[in-house]
Amino acid sequence: MSIIVLGTVALDNVLTPCGARKDMLGGSASHFSTAARLFSDVHLVAVIGEDFPKRYMDFLKNKGIILNSVEKMPGLSFKWEGKYEGDLNTAITLNTRLGVLSSFNPRVAAGETGIENVFLANIDPDIQMRLLKAMRRPKLVGLDSMNYWINNKRRALLKVLKMADIYLVNEGEAKALSGESNLLKAAKALRRMGPPMIVVKKGEHGVMFVSDAFIFSLPAYPIDTIVDPTGAGDTFAGGFMGYLSGRRGLREADIKKAIAYGTICASFNVQGFGLERTAVLTVPEMNARLAKFKKIVSF
Amino acid sequence: MSIIVLGTVALDNVLTPCGARKDMLGGSASHFSTAARLFSDVHLVAVIGEDFPKRYMDFLKNKGIILNSVEKMPGLSFKWEGKYEGDLNTAITLNTRLGVLSSFNPRVAAGETGIENVFLANIDPDIQMRLLKAMRRPKLVGLDSMNYWINNKRRALLKVLKMADIYLVNEGEAKALSGESNLLKAAKALRRMGPPMIVVKKGEHGVMFVSDAFIFSLPAYPIDTIVDPTGAGDTFAGGFMGYLSGRRGLREADIKKAIAYGTICASFNVQGFGLERTAVLTVPEMNARLAKFKKIVSF
Repeated sequence: MSIIVLGTVALDNVLTPCGARKDMLGGSASHFSTAARLFSDVHLVAVIGEDFPKRYMDFLKNKGIILNSVEKMPGLSFKWEGKYEGDLNTAITLNTRLGVLSSFNPRVAAGETGIENVFLANIDPDIQMRLLKAMRRPKLVGLDSMNYWINNKRRALLKVLKMADIYLVNEGEAKALSGESNLLKAAKALRRMGPPMIVVKKGEHGVMFVSDAFIFSLPAYPIDTIVDPTGAGDTFAGGFMGYLSGRRGLREADIKKAIAYGTICASFNVQGFGLERTAVLTVPEMNARLAKFKKIVSF
Repeated sequence: MSIIVLGTVALDNVLTPCGARKDMLGGSASHFSTAARLFSDVHLVAVIGEDFPKRYMDFLKNKGIILNSVEKMPGLSFKWEGKYEGDLNTAITLNTRLGVLSSFNPRVAAGETGIENVFLANIDPDIQMRLLKAMRRPKLVGLDSMNYWINNKRRALLKVLKMADIYLVNEGEAKALSGESNLLKAAKALRRMGPPMIVVKKGEHGVMFVSDAFIFSLPAYPIDTIVDPTGAGDTFAGGFMGYLSGRRGLREADIKKAIAYGTICASFNVQGFGLERTAVLTVPEMNARLAKFKKIVSF
């Protein structure tokens, strides 16, 4: 099975209580792809600048990620600088340089427009919509976003929401977009905005899924040393969508298992800076932790 | 099976986005008992003032709770006044009147000192220690506390902790007492302070259990209208300890099921003011929601 993901490929400067990294490979689409490749062929749609290190493209290629729709543009790459303190629950953005992202118009390679599984990782909703229009027969569309677009491009976001099958959203964003302070009410309100399936990501507190058919909820996999939570949500999405893209239909059991896989992928992600840990993650390792997790939540 | 609980019996004034109540029956031991009575004989150790309404004592008696060790003292009853806003996650204390609680010396009725299951609900740790010394052969001792005692009677609390088998603690309190910002690390640090079993209550985010043998974690049961969260933690403890008091030994499966029952009891508690909802809770209702919950967390 194949999945195509649109999102950012970035250079990250990150500071956490465990240390610091400069010009790491980051971005929503990088994290998504590095997890999703464990389940599926992954096609990446993104833009990089002239300064982008060749070794990062080689890294993605070596992970089996297909880069036909990655465009190199004149200018500097997208760059994010942030830090975490205390319980590492909230990223503090220190600086954002859009660079080539500000004029990005996604182009999908000819052979890729027929891919049925689509993930729109966090990026400008206008760009998400353009990608979606380029796809000929999307069957399963997952969508992520962030507070910035909720506040500054709400109308465009609401439009993309109507085309999405699954909306993956942070707890705070779910409350902000819906205006509800209760999380279950917030999820139900988001469902009424279009997407039949809502996945609320609660960071260290786990995840809640809401559809008309059922509710599902899992805690996070307990981890006692969080090295760097950057990209945990995108990694969750990669495991979740990656697993689902290999299923026919969307049975309740498949969705639940996809959420569990997303949780496990995210738990590895936070154990290293950037992609350090998920880059070397193997399917047997992932399945071993999934089995442990099942014991941790079963009664 | 029998369990004896020491804690507060209070008059509560509560204001939430759903409304207000004045002079409601409240207190840690009232909430604990009202849940635990679904599983076990419950013996209550507490103090009330001369102003305490007879109908509240009748209510507890009618629920089957044994009041031989409830003492009426000259003076006013303990009273708590608080409110909740927004997502109702944090109680804002407006006023506390200790009343007769300030000179409370717990006395256990002769026939009750041999009870093997003991729960020390939130109250001054010196009073908790006195109760514990009055018991002849405690086999399973559960302990709760609150930030106030962590900050103001830390030494006394640490002493009681060493005598407890199970410490039930809020997320914030666990971090404060251990000095750890990561919850799993915090729980492990608390375990090293004495109690072999640590239950971290995370409110709407569920619960995490840590012992040397295993880790267990559950989300909360999803509720879309929280009426009044007062006493949810005590109600959790009532379901949890109540279930355990009926088991021989403490097998992993028993502990997990006890945590699930605690979660379900707490979910009913928040659906009404004070004890309104748990007062009328039946075992079949509770088991029906437990079965639903199992589906919500199983993959």
